[in-house]
Amino acid sequence: MTSTEERPSVPEPVASAHDIAQQNRNYTMFSWSVQGGPLPPVMTGGKGSHFYDGDGQSWLDFSSQLINLNIGHQHPRMLEAIKKQVDTMCFAGPSFATEPRGKLGQKLAEVTGLAKTFFTLGGSEANENAIKIARLVTGRDKIITRYRSYHGATMGSMTASGDPRRWPVEPGVPGVVRAFDPYCYRCPFGKTPDSCGRECVSHIDEIIQMEGPDSIAAILVEGITGSNGLLVPPDDYYLKLRALCDKYGILLITDEVMSGFGRTGKWLATQHYGIKPDIVTCAKGLTSGYMPLGACIVSQPIADYFDTHMLWGGLTYSGHPVCCAAAVENLAIYEDEGLFENALELGAYLGQRLEAMKARYACVGDVRYKGLFSVLELVKDKATKEPLAPFGGTSPEMGQLAAHLRSKHVYAYSRFNFLWVCPPLVVTKEELDAGLDVYEEALALVDATLAGAVAAD
Amino acid sequence: MTSTEERPSVPEPVASAHDIAQQNRNYTMFSWSVQGGPLPPVMTGGKGSHFYDGDGQSWLDFSSQLINLNIGHQHPRMLEAIKKQVDTMCFAGPSFATEPRGKLGQKLAEVTGLAKTFFTLGGSEANENAIKIARLVTGRDKIITRYRSYHGATMGSMTASGDPRRWPVEPGVPGVVRAFDPYCYRCPFGKTPDSCGRECVSHIDEIIQMEGPDSIAAILVEGITGSNGLLVPPDDYYLKLRALCDKYGILLITDEVMSGFGRTGKWLATQHYGIKPDIVTCAKGLTSGYMPLGACIVSQPIADYFDTHMLWGGLTYSGHPVCCAAAVENLAIYEDEGLFENALELGAYLGQRLEAMKARYACVGDVRYKGLFSVLELVKDKATKEPLAPFGGTSPEMGQLAAHLRSKHVYAYSRFNFLWVCPPLVVTKEELDAGLDVYEEALALVDATLAGAVAAD
Repeated sequence: MTSTEERPSVPEPVASAHDIAQQNRNYTMFSWSVQGGPLPPVMTGGKGSHFYDGDGQSWLDFSSQLINLNIGHQHPRMLEAIKKQVDTMCFAGPSFATEPRGKLGQKLAEVTGLAKTFFTLGGSEANENAIKIARLVTGRDKIITRYRSYHGATMGSMTASGDPRRWPVEPGVPGVVRAFDPYCYRCPFGKTPDSCGRECVSHIDEIIQMEGPDSIAAILVEGITGSNGLLVPPDDYYLKLRALCDKYGILLITDEVMSGFGRTGKWLATQHYGIKPDIVTCAKGLTSGYMPLGACIVSQPIADYFDTHMLWGGLTYSGHPVCCAAAVENLAIYEDEGLFENALELGAYLGQRLEAMKARYACVGDVRYKGLFSVLELVKDKATKEPLAPFGGTSPEMGQLAAHLRSKHVYAYSRFNFLWVCPPLVVTKEELDAGLDVYEEALALVDATLAGAVAAD
Repeated sequence: MTSTEERPSVPEPVASAHDIAQQNRNYTMFSWSVQGGPLPPVMTGGKGSHFYDGDGQSWLDFSSQLINLNIGHQHPRMLEAIKKQVDTMCFAGPSFATEPRGKLGQKLAEVTGLAKTFFTLGGSEANENAIKIARLVTGRDKIITRYRSYHGATMGSMTASGDPRRWPVEPGVPGVVRAFDPYCYRCPFGKTPDSCGRECVSHIDEIIQMEGPDSIAAILVEGITGSNGLLVPPDDYYLKLRALCDKYGILLITDEVMSGFGRTGKWLATQHYGIKPDIVTCAKGLTSGYMPLGACIVSQPIADYFDTHMLWGGLTYSGHPVCCAAAVENLAIYEDEGLFENALELGAYLGQRLEAMKARYACVGDVRYKGLFSVLELVKDKATKEPLAPFGGTSPEMGQLAAHLRSKHVYAYSRFNFLWVCPPLVVTKEELDAGLDVYEEALALVDATLAGAVAAD
């Protein structure tokens, strides 16, 4: 872990940072937002766990951008590998075999235990194709997904999501049936660890009965739910879910877009639980964002099916040589630099610090973590578990929290009443401590606000 | 136009070409195909209008890969620009303003006459977002599209397509209504140029009446239909379609993924017809495939709407710095090297040669062209117009044609009874003649086969 030592001094302010922001505002539209707000933040570069904002400031990236930049900013080996492929061959149509495409396919089979990969550009398209493939292979239509889930923004993946981002664009694709999540902190079945009978799985069995077992192509779940609260399932959840799928001949698709590729310290989050899905979708940590790439990886029986049946899917950029070459190098960096080991080791330490925060701060209702994939769930009251912000919304306290982190140049992802801690896998213990100290300052401020509100009542 | 002179000698055969093909076959899946067939072709590099197959052969690329590699293979300026951005900053999350993103947004506004761009990764996602945006802005649900059209493979774009590739994955998204195409060679209204009353537009007016004018958000059409037969509309088609949209407050979305960015000799195919759409989607020629990128470009009123309303769309890789930098350079190359002028000039010559083929060969029923975007429609009989292969299928004669082109190392795109001629915009007159001569040999072979079949009857 050398990102701190190697980090050069922060560049001088860019004279035109304001111009860059204004030009972006004037001519481009930004994801999931009202466009007319304040000028967007500018990024001009980065190194390891830090990025630069064009005003001469270096930020500690505690969300790895969108929980995807696993090897950190501007990794030198990655830059060289990409440039080498650019010089060799930038583009080949999707019907051509190329060296990086074949290498990456073989490597993905090796690390997932599955057979063949269909390459897309991102997670959304990977899930679109997973759904398509499941329907084609099984001859069945329905897909069971979970409420607190996000699978992407194109129509198929958006409908498969439970996330409120689907509301404004519904009705979506027919055939999606939704189940509840393994959300132990707020168990939808009113259970506690003592009374739990894994109703989070058994109710899916009942749904299957009611929907017709022979009509269900697949159950699609995130490896570990990410942007809807980072819900770490009970240890035997996946064994039971896998058994349920096998009972009815239903395919298990795990969306490892966010949870895969070292984020939890393993290639796939499901590898913590001793099961193998039939289809895995991924993106994000597959290339650490250096190049866009998604993948839909299928088991041997599914691959065999398409030896004699048409695969009704495709895209111009499938198997893009530069994107595949970037992924090949990214996976090699994970292994050569022991980044999964770092994620597991620092993840254990992070877990301790998160538990300590939960004990120390009134506003921390729950903490959930696996490797360097973690979240704090914030509440107004530990006893009632009243969220610090409502589902789908925000609050002055969440605003206060985010403002403090920004003021200390710690870049963090927060949504509703959740605050994530997801630094790059190259993060050092010193960087982790520095960032978490700022989180603690922010939590103390919120505690003080909440205490003041109580006192004022 | 120097691609021939600058082209280096073809590399030596790659020792491992067979291994590359086998590894790709074993571990990756290919678009729109049965996977168990012969080994896929290999590509190892290219230059200008040619690419190399790893067996020491150079191929003349007469379909610019998937009609997207407009500046030709491995353009030196493009490689440098990409590598420069890789060294500066590979990734920034979609909420950040970056220099290449802002520059590209401004340039796209300039060349399209529209206002703001939302960046995606490919054409399919661009169309998904165009549909979403049209629904959000108008508060209406239905989208009118055309039968002979392709808009992408994700659920929304696939449903919007009329192409048979949607059949296996239907039912799709609700709200898509289909109209007929401006297919003058086989007019769906039984008209000829003399009797035509532009029923291809007027019947859409009737559809609007029957569907309810206030329920229709947008009409979505390809600038010029590409993979469903390259249907060049009558010169006043777009003026009439634009007027129809204005009459009912319906947005006009043109999908310029294939027809845009110089393919027809203009930035947008619709610029030949003197109208401006409300939303333009693009990909392919935007970056010539060197990096994956798509864009959804909207008019000022639509941009203004989102100043105060949420844009319910997003993706991790929106505005990817390297992809945007590649597009900026690609557009500069178009201008600096006069490639649109070349497309217009050589396109006029191509048109003459295509017309001559139509006059000379019995199997050429129709030829359609605009710039370097062109197709031959092949028939068994000029009088009856019986297609050389059925809709959605192929035939021994089409196989014979494709085999001859392959034997001469001319890479061409054919589908159903269509054979495209779409070389890179850097193609020289000598290269164009060389390729077309091979096309003529193939057409002569088909004519001989057809004559033999008649003689045998």
